[in-house]
Amino acid sequence: MSAGSTLVTGIGELVTCDGTGDGGAGVRRDHALVVEDGRVAWVGPAASAPSADAVVDVEGRCVLPGFVDSHAHLVFAGDRSAEFAARMAGERYDGGGIGVSVGATRAAGDDELRALLAGRVAEMRAQGTTTVEVKSGYGLTVVDEVRALRLAGEVTQETTYLGAHVVPEEMRADRSAYVDLVTGEMLAACAPHARWVDVFCEPASPHAFTGEESHAVLVAGRDAGLGLRVHGNQLGHGPGVQLACELGAASVDHCTYLSTADVDALVDSAGTTTATLLPGVEFSTRSPYPDARALLDAGASVALASDCNPGTCFSSSMPFVVALAVREMGMTPSEAVVAATRGGARALRRDDIGRVEVGARADLAVLDAPNHLHLSYRAGVPLARVLEV
Amino acid sequence: MSAGSTLVTGIGELVTCDGTGDGGAGVRRDHALVVEDGRVAWVGPAASAPSADAVVDVEGRCVLPGFVDSHAHLVFAGDRSAEFAARMAGERYDGGGIGVSVGATRAAGDDELRALLAGRVAEMRAQGTTTVEVKSGYGLTVVDEVRALRLAGEVTQETTYLGAHVVPEEMRADRSAYVDLVTGEMLAACAPHARWVDVFCEPASPHAFTGEESHAVLVAGRDAGLGLRVHGNQLGHGPGVQLACELGAASVDHCTYLSTADVDALVDSAGTTTATLLPGVEFSTRSPYPDARALLDAGASVALASDCNPGTCFSSSMPFVVALAVREMGMTPSEAVVAATRGGARALRRDDIGRVEVGARADLAVLDAPNHLHLSYRAGVPLARVLEV
Ligand SMILES: [Zn+2]
Ligand SMILES: [Zn+2]
Repeated sequence: MSAGSTLVTGIGELVTCDGTGDGGAGVRRDHALVVEDGRVAWVGPAASAPSADAVVDVEGRCVLPGFVDSHAHLVFAGDRSAEFAARMAGERYDGGGIGVSVGATRAAGDDELRALLAGRVAEMRAQGTTTVEVKSGYGLTVVDEVRALRLAGEVTQETTYLGAHVVPEEMRADRSAYVDLVTGEMLAACAPHARWVDVFCEPASPHAFTGEESHAVLVAGRDAGLGLRVHGNQLGHGPGVQLACELGAASVDHCTYLSTADVDALVDSAGTTTATLLPGVEFSTRSPYPDARALLDAGASVALASDCNPGTCFSSSMPFVVALAVREMGMTPSEAVVAATRGGARALRRDDIGRVEVGARADLAVLDAPNHLHLSYRAGVPLARVLEV
Repeated sequence: MSAGSTLVTGIGELVTCDGTGDGGAGVRRDHALVVEDGRVAWVGPAASAPSADAVVDVEGRCVLPGFVDSHAHLVFAGDRSAEFAARMAGERYDGGGIGVSVGATRAAGDDELRALLAGRVAEMRAQGTTTVEVKSGYGLTVVDEVRALRLAGEVTQETTYLGAHVVPEEMRADRSAYVDLVTGEMLAACAPHARWVDVFCEPASPHAFTGEESHAVLVAGRDAGLGLRVHGNQLGHGPGVQLACELGAASVDHCTYLSTADVDALVDSAGTTTATLLPGVEFSTRSPYPDARALLDAGASVALASDCNPGTCFSSSMPFVVALAVREMGMTPSEAVVAATRGGARALRRDDIGRVEVGARADLAVLDAPNHLHLSYRAGVPLARVLEV
């Protein structure tokens, strides 16, 4: 961040995501903006731009809000690429592989985990992501979960306590003891290091949590002052979405299998609970994609995120997620960009990011392309990066 | 390229694509290699590596042959992103949009086209591609086709005359006159600037060429000393594959709709004719993917390429193509990497590229990953780049 004000000119297309126009993308042409003290200080027609201490000319490129990746698991060690290859050759995912990452993560030193995490955040930033939520969930003991959140807190303020990722192998004989730990001692130790609590609510997986268990985890987290998030309805129909809406969670993520009642509950929440879709997971697990159109057409709040994690989607690429949303879920390019920025911000209950408006943080991305359509038109090409101002 | 010899060490996994092992990937661990005069001079166990003038340590990364992208259309001007968005919203592709690029390309100056082409080649190189074939086909007049090939020849030796891309709008009233031009005056002017001739053989498209017309184009090209390539069987069943095999073409590309007889013809060609699959096209046009497994299981020679072009796939990313091949076409990660390197080389009748063996060109790529599985495991992440030695 430079001292003084910076005028950004030469913007081929400015995607403000201000909620107006096609898909809410608020596209402006012949516009410029001024950044001061890390905030957007002015946006308007280039012809009437004020003077500033410095000028950055983006030479016709598209400028948009930096991506807000509201769902990621970045604190882990170990390599599970062979598991991926086996799955592509026909093996089915049931959440069992998480234990491999748990073992490797527990065994890793702080410095190793810190370096891995920093590398992943840098990789995301190199692809245009300016905010990332980071979950624990590969520790599953009090000390390992606290450590994960402490490290996460070094790179983001969006830290999520996910002690309820799966029941760890050593406690499968007594699930209720693990739920007690997650809602008791572990929560007490983790809450000071977390903004959010999350739970993998998935009755279809023997290692994840039932609706009743998930309810207990969320209520305990709420009572400890944490905001609520839910992994729900990924592998089959289940209670995750309704539970999230009932408890006023900020987001319910995956939403791959939704009933009409689930869609209604999200719509009835009036944007309180965002449906966060993670199509990189469906790509990487060769699963059917969520019905984004049903959600959008019904008027639900929709976000896109990476779910970057070693098991079901080790992609950190928000541009890739946008391209999948257009190709596989019938979202328009504008809807997809808005869901990956302003939608992610909403899923994190943030109004200072995910849009280019006066007062918002100057978290900007720039594309090596004249407009935002190119994010899906040019799938796989690394077009996006953070605009350093 | 440095003067003297360079030892590449610290290779986490060396993918030689020497035809041995799983998928022909010839994976080696604890290996090193020496580059001298732009060629691979030595490959072997790291412990017995010879000394060299310089050392490059890749710190545990995967090294593989640079991608050989044997099918690309890079000489064009104009922006067709809006057409892409319309197609994603439901419009069908029939080859008609090519005329838009033809108009913009004819109108562009040499320097503009040269800059666009250089930018696209640089973008490919930034993603690990070391050889790219470049077609004409957005000129469709004698002078415009010659110009495209002249410019293509400035960036690659793999230049392809594609006057028979579509019948240009101004000649649709008299198709046979256009075929006469393509096989006569235009061919005579273009042949000195091209290594290959290609034709869009697609009876399903009203603007592309029938089997009979395609036969005439290919035979004329062959008589002018050019090697043969075919765009075939993209939009429906057709004569493209059989024609390619009958005439001994190096490659028939797309192969989306194949009959058993088509597969048999490719197998019977014993590798003379490679089936080049372009799954970025199916991604970008929301079409069904080719049956790669049928081809591989039958023993056909298979390559993967980008088909980077402004209409049906404006992705230049070979890593993305590899990820699609694994997710959507059931290729193993090893098969996909081999098809994108050695397979592409075969489709260009080159044995000096697409593999890491003594005597081959030192056209190498390196991944920000420990092994080649990560290319599909980490879809969308820009892991690959050219290894500069
Ligand atoms: Zn997750
Ligand atoms: Zn093509």
